Amino acid sequence: MVQMRLKAVEWLDDRLRILDQSKLPHEESFIDLVDYQDVALAIKEMKVRGAPAIGIAAAYGIALGAQSIKGENKDEFLSQLDELMQTFVSTRPTAVNLFRAISRMRKAATGGNVPEMKTALASEAKEIHEEEIEATRRLSQLGAELIKDGFTILTHCNTGALATGGYGTALGIVKAAKEQGKRISVFADETRPLLQGARLTAWELEQEGIPVTLITDSMAGYFMNQGKIDCAIVGADRIAANGDVANKIGTYTLAVLAKENSIPFYVAAPISTVDLTLPSGAEIPIEERDPKEVTHIQGIRIAPEGTNAANPAFDVTPHNYISAIITEKGMIREPYLDGLAKIAT
Amino acid sequence: MVQMRLKAVEWLDDRLRILDQSKLPHEESFIDLVDYQDVALAIKEMKVRGAPAIGIAAAYGIALGAQSIKGENKDEFLSQLDELMQTFVSTRPTAVNLFRAISRMRKAATGGNVPEMKTALASEAKEIHEEEIEATRRLSQLGAELIKDGFTILTHCNTGALATGGYGTALGIVKAAKEQGKRISVFADETRPLLQGARLTAWELEQEGIPVTLITDSMAGYFMNQGKIDCAIVGADRIAANGDVANKIGTYTLAVLAKENSIPFYVAAPISTVDLTLPSGAEIPIEERDPKEVTHIQGIRIAPEGTNAANPAFDVTPHNYISAIITEKGMIREPYLDGLAKIAT
Repeated sequence: MVQMRLKAVEWLDDRLRILDQSKLPHEESFIDLVDYQDVALAIKEMKVRGAPAIGIAAAYGIALGAQSIKGENKDEFLSQLDELMQTFVSTRPTAVNLFRAISRMRKAATGGNVPEMKTALASEAKEIHEEEIEATRRLSQLGAELIKDGFTILTHCNTGALATGGYGTALGIVKAAKEQGKRISVFADETRPLLQGARLTAWELEQEGIPVTLITDSMAGYFMNQGKIDCAIVGADRIAANGDVANKIGTYTLAVLAKENSIPFYVAAPISTVDLTLPSGAEIPIEERDPKEVTHIQGIRIAPEGTNAANPAFDVTPHNYISAIITEKGMIREPYLDGLAKIAT
Repeated sequence: MVQMRLKAVEWLDDRLRILDQSKLPHEESFIDLVDYQDVALAIKEMKVRGAPAIGIAAAYGIALGAQSIKGENKDEFLSQLDELMQTFVSTRPTAVNLFRAISRMRKAATGGNVPEMKTALASEAKEIHEEEIEATRRLSQLGAELIKDGFTILTHCNTGALATGGYGTALGIVKAAKEQGKRISVFADETRPLLQGARLTAWELEQEGIPVTLITDSMAGYFMNQGKIDCAIVGADRIAANGDVANKIGTYTLAVLAKENSIPFYVAAPISTVDLTLPSGAEIPIEERDPKEVTHIQGIRIAPEGTNAANPAFDVTPHNYISAIITEKGMIREPYLDGLAKIAT
């Protein structure tokens, strides 16, 4: 299967190999990271991106950083470990998978001596990775039941192997539906400013042999209104206890358009994306990125010099716009508060 | 006033000078067109664009073409004139201002001998231009009454001096509100694929000293939902008898988002944009442009080679999403069928 070939993140015991997604589709270039600070930078600069994938990359980055801590003194080790974890905490604020991974890594380093803790940290990172692969595989299988033969699916940003370090979330469902023999096609939003749809989703789908039509973000409403879209599926960066979903900027717009056109709007995410500590989406921190990502495209200035721009990287879709949240433990529908509490911990 | 400096289209008796908008904001370059076929090409390639401006440019192009017709035989002249008008008919299908201008030019060439008809055609083109300048100035004054001190206005595409050959429509209202002493600011959608918002609207507003925040098209919903937008104003390429409005792709999406967030959504257009021959927006032809405009940005490929893309240049906003249509003869509200019939002919 292609998703196994597409290793967004690969652990090589003494280094982390990542596919530099900022260079795709022009260049398939892998980078070997040995310094944990480079892993943190790769997350910040979105060389590795997608909520599940950045959780996995951070876990491996912490394991890598732990290995390089000198000495056998436990307190000293834990203090340095805490410091390097802070580096990852401050990379990106919205995807909760990152914080969940860091918190799991912190708990993994409690027993034994320093060498044992280093081993435990590497094992925990691998386990996080394996769990995410399994979770996305299961939710993709479950979600594929919603896709009927002949469906045209709208998606936003990139939620495939690249984003998840595994099978994919929204795009995983698309791939699973195809593997079930359904004839499907996809409309992919280009997803400005960083064009993950044009650069990554179009690329992944073409490799899977799934017909894709690339559109600008502003065209999704037109095609929904024309009756060309059977359902929309997106991923998530953080899901609050009430089912409000933070995801790539533009998701809220698609959800409003889907509701207006009576098109089912699905969110696909592993349970690691659910954050029961936040009562609603209003509490989810929204990352504001460099305005240059808006005034420039691939390094080329498109706006007049000095133009003021805003660049929120995510938005929040209130739960009442969402037809179902698809997780590895089943499909959750209204009331989300109850459904999410049951499956998440 | 700046709009007088910004001459998108200027008639110089034996030639038409246009500002090449495809090169903005990087380069302010003017082109002198002497051959009518070059005028038609400039419309097609969007060197001159915006519904009122392409009507004006086509009228001048026809006047220019007429001047170059050899001989004094009236039938021969009219036959060649018809042919060159056909060239303009086939440039762009959606903006009705183009067809209205062509039809006016056809009627202007009926009386007198060939030299008289050439003079009449040049006069008619100048009259169309002057009427549009006056219409946009008046509708801007009228529309500005809707703008309160402190308003933040969302707009899409470019609807200023560049688009209209005059004062502007949606952007004309913004400018008029500022001239009335109101403190206003603008959120400008970048307007993919051709980035008229980033390239032209940001540029015009900066020259006017009006604070502007550039956003990607996918961010408009976020800022509406955050309560940052007081009203949205857009232009139009064709308005059907029932008030349905064809405008730049993405307009329908903004209208749906505005309704969902209880934000007034205004359309500003001269009466030359109203087409009473079409009962509804469903009959408005939507231009499908080269998919390369989606797969490439300013000549640089952003999608994998061979990616399939769609590129509808316009969409239709049903009248029930529109709070008012602002014309030079007043503001029209529901029922649009009656209101538009009264002002348009």
